[in-house]
Formats: sequence, C-alpha cells, structure tokens
Amino acid sequence: MPRPRIAVTMGDPAGIGPELCCRIAAEPALGDVCEPVVIGDPDVLARVAGRLALRAPRAIAAAVPALGASAIIPGQPSAASGAMALAAIEHAVRGCRDGSYAAMVTGPIAKSAIAASGCDFPGHTELLAQRCGVTDVAMVMYDEALAVVMSTCHRALDGTGAALNQPRIVRCAHLLHAALRRLRARPPRLAMLGFNPHAGETGMFGAEEARAIQPAVAQLRSEGIVISDPLPPDTAFTPAARAYYDGHVCHYHDQALIPFKALCFDTGVNVTLGLPIIRTSVDHGTAFDIAWQGRAEPDSLRAAIRLAVRLLPSADGRG
Amino acid sequence: MPRPRIAVTMGDPAGIGPELCCRIAAEPALGDVCEPVVIGDPDVLARVAGRLALRAPRAIAAAVPALGASAIIPGQPSAASGAMALAAIEHAVRGCRDGSYAAMVTGPIAKSAIAASGCDFPGHTELLAQRCGVTDVAMVMYDEALAVVMSTCHRALDGTGAALNQPRIVRCAHLLHAALRRLRARPPRLAMLGFNPHAGETGMFGAEEARAIQPAVAQLRSEGIVISDPLPPDTAFTPAARAYYDGHVCHYHDQALIPFKALCFDTGVNVTLGLPIIRTSVDHGTAFDIAWQGRAEPDSLRAAIRLAVRLLPSADGRG
Repeated sequence: MPRPRIAVTMGDPAGIGPELCCRIAAEPALGDVCEPVVIGDPDVLARVAGRLALRAPRAIAAAVPALGASAIIPGQPSAASGAMALAAIEHAVRGCRDGSYAAMVTGPIAKSAIAASGCDFPGHTELLAQRCGVTDVAMVMYDEALAVVMSTCHRALDGTGAALNQPRIVRCAHLLHAALRRLRARPPRLAMLGFNPHAGETGMFGAEEARAIQPAVAQLRSEGIVISDPLPPDTAFTPAARAYYDGHVCHYHDQALIPFKALCFDTGVNVTLGLPIIRTSVDHGTAFDIAWQGRAEPDSLRAAIRLAVRLLPSADGRG
Repeated sequence: MPRPRIAVTMGDPAGIGPELCCRIAAEPALGDVCEPVVIGDPDVLARVAGRLALRAPRAIAAAVPALGASAIIPGQPSAASGAMALAAIEHAVRGCRDGSYAAMVTGPIAKSAIAASGCDFPGHTELLAQRCGVTDVAMVMYDEALAVVMSTCHRALDGTGAALNQPRIVRCAHLLHAALRRLRARPPRLAMLGFNPHAGETGMFGAEEARAIQPAVAQLRSEGIVISDPLPPDTAFTPAARAYYDGHVCHYHDQALIPFKALCFDTGVNVTLGLPIIRTSVDHGTAFDIAWQGRAEPDSLRAAIRLAVRLLPSADGRG
C-alpha cells in the first residue's frame, strides 16, 4: 500500500517552522508511516539547513510572486514572511481537496505577518473552514492522556454562557466522539462539563446546565453515545476522571486549555474537526526568539503528523 | 517553647471525619510540631475507634444539647450530625478568638445536614467571617507545587467579569503575598491571571484586563510586590510557569480550581485568608460512602494541620 502523502506547511519562514521541517523530514520512523511533503520555500529551507548543518528536505514551493528567500530575516516576521506562510496553507488545502494529499499538518504562523501581507486572516481554522465551504467546525486538543473539544472559543468570557446552545454542544460531542472512535481502543466515554462552578449547584449559580447542556446530554444518550451528566468543572480533570473518560466536551477556551496545557504542554496536537479534509497542527507558536538557531524541538510537529495519519479513513485506528 | 494547640473539628460525625481524627491524633510526627486538640463528640470517637481497632483521641466535647452519639448513623447525615458538626466549629472559632487555640483546622461537613439542624449555614468560610466580624476574606488553595487565590468564587460564570474590581483583586493579592512570605524560602513572585482568553488579546475579547486587572497590577507594583502582567490563562499553569511563580491570583472559581485539582488532588489544603484567626481545612468531602470503614486517608487533614502550624506568627516560615 502506498504511504499517505501528508502536506506539512512550513509556517512563518522567519520562525522555527523551517528548522522543524528539516528535522522531521529526516526521521526514518515518520517515513515508515507516511510521506511528509514540506510545503514552503526551498531556498529558505536550504538557507536554514546550511546554517544548522542539516539536510534540506525536498519541498514543494507554493507560488509567492516577487518575494524570495532573501527577503526573509530570521526572527523578524514581515509582509514577505506572512505571504510565504499563507501561500503554503492555500496550496495545502487545495491539494487536500483535490486528492494530492491525504491530510495537512500546519506549522506555526504569525497572524500579524499574514495580515501585513494584505490578507484579512482570522486564523488557520477560520480560513480552512471558509476555503472548504463549511462553518460548523470545532477545535480539539489531543493527547493520549487527554482530549478536549470547545463549544465556544475566541470570545470574551462574560456572555459566553448566553451563547451556549444545544445544537452546537451536540455537534462538538459528535465530532469528538467520531475522532475518538478512530483513536481509542475502546468505545469512547465522554465527559460533559458543566459551565458554572459546581455545574450550577442545581441552579444556584447559573442556568446554562439546565437550559442547554443537560438537553444536549439527553439527545446524545438517545443516540447511544456514552456521556456523563454535566460535571463540576473543577473535578472533571482529576487523575481518576482523566483515566475514566476518553474525551471532554468543554464550553469555553480556558476551561479546555488551562487543564490541557497544564498537563500536556509538550505533546499536544491541535486538530480541526468538521472539515471535509484532515488537518492537524503544532501546539506552539513561531518562537521567533530562537528561530534558525538549532534549538527547536520537533516533538509537537511529529505528534501532529502521526495523529493526522491515524485519523485517515484507511487507518486501523491504533497508530 | 510549648507546642501550639490546634483545634481540629471532627466534621460531620456520620462521615469520615471521626476516623481521620483518630488516625492523625496517633501520629507522633504531628505531635512533635503541635498539640492537635480534636473538637467533637467523645462517644462518637470511641464508637469509631472501637469499630476500627484504633485508639480514640482525647477530645473536647462541644455542647450539643439533647443529641448524643447514639443518634449518629455512619453514612447518614442528619439534623443530629449537622448540629454536632456545627457545635464543633462554633467552639473552635471561639477558642481561637480567646487564645485557647493557636489555629483551627476543619474536617469535612455536609452543608445540608447543618441546614437540617436549623442553622442558615452558607459554608465554613462565610460563617467564620461572620463570627469574626470581617467581610473581605479570600479562599486560597495551597500545595507546595501551586498556590491559588480567587477574587470571585461561588457565583454564575456569566457576569463574573462585570463583578471584577481593582480593590478586591488587590486585596486577594495582598493576602496571598503575605501568606507566601511565611511559607516560601524566597520573596514571592505572583502570577496575575487575565480573565478572558489570551488575556483579552489587547481588548479584542473583553475589557476586564484593561479596566480592573492591569490597574491592580500597577498598584501592587507601586507597593513593591513582584507580579506579572495579566497572563493568558491557558499558559499560566504550564510546568515552566508553575516553577517560576509562587502564587497565582485568579478571578473565578474554576480558573483556580480546575488546574489545582488536576495537579494537586490529594495534597491540597484550603486556607481562609483575611480572618483574624488562622484557619485551614481539608480539601475533600465527607465521603459518607466509606464512613467508619477504615478506608479513609488522613493525608489532606495532616497537610492542613501542618500548614496551619506554618502559618502561625511565631513560626519560622519553613515548616
């Protein structure tokens, strides 16, 4: 069986992305499970590889008119670096849609640099949803020890409760459940979190549990999904709870990401669910302060590539 | 120097409190640093000790008219058990105020049982503040690895941002800072958390950082306290952040307690700061399901007693 081709976008070329791509492309163990195809500027990769005594990977250059590697200065995001990063993303998503790639894995970008290049860029997730013509996607953070989905994400915390609604919560639970069925050896058990302290203490502290969350639980159970009642958020991530549940349905950015980054800082992978393509991402930033210095660790990119392979429809679900 | 006398309330007698008291009273190492004085019904303690082949500690009976040990059924909270638990708390707070005890440590109670006994009981913290004639107290969760204070606590999450205010945040930081100066070997470094995702991303997601939190930071720095700018909450509890900061100033119940209970579930101590007396508490409930069965672990009660001793004005701050 041919190895799946995985598009790996280089991220902002002034950050640590090029070094990460050089490092992972040279790893035989990754090559055993897939063919990672770096999408990025070959001249930048050659410069980075030369500086760090690495071998430059063979890469697909995404078209970036009138801007070349010489415009890129390590550690300094710019319109040029943003345009290069964006071109790689656009190339990868097109390639996934037309079947050239089985999945895409994104390196770290600087939103400000892409904005400086003239694109109104809200973020990877929103751009990919728009290019794929879908709206109802969900961000999952995945680690073997913990998997979280967020029913709301980048918004002010006050007012988030009023924005919670049953269909969106159900959608997030469906997406997480389907992914976990591929990734876990047992039928997934989901934890549904409450929104308020003590999950509202039977209505004393907020009504979101009764209005939106408990009805979502009832609907999911009627479909045969194994899921908890709304849990007091502060005890949903204890060691015993983490051992019992395969995935957590959370309701706001920090409810999911505070425990995830406290527990799985170096090994987490960001997955966008709900797209017609498979997309995972590193769980760290561009690290401009250590760009092109030989100090970047490819753990997160490696984990993101491996997870993308495990999410493929043809995968056996064990990775 | 005489050992400090520490009042240890037995908690709900139908729960695991009596067993915990029997166990810790027999620990020589604790006796080296203090004289733990159990406040609770001697007959209940004798019954529990007899059943579990432990030695009953000498205990101070708090007056509970017309209710005796025979009314207490293990695992079954009642008006009788609630009245007994409440009497011990009232005795301990009086004794701390008149100098009979150096500090008080509270065992686990059932709010519903105390309410059934006829007392309008909002919780330990509120009762103690009322009895001591103060209002501006703060709940801290303490572990050697992590210390968190909450500027708001038991309330619906929506609307919490509107309730944040600079004086309350400053007060919480002061209380945490003063406690850490006793407990840590170095001048404390505080982490100030943001309220919104990404600490508001410069105002894109909420204004609490600019309105209340950053002004609190400015005031605290003007007083010489070392404290961070408002941190993105999701990266405030990474291993590196936990190693760097001695204490975290949080803004809502689960922002503090999700990471605390994920990381320090068995060893945490609840401390009420801002009282004229010293009070610590176990970090677990009554565990009625395993009451009087010989299965209760006194780790949290032991840690609470040791922390109370370290918080004494005469302590050397190293414990």
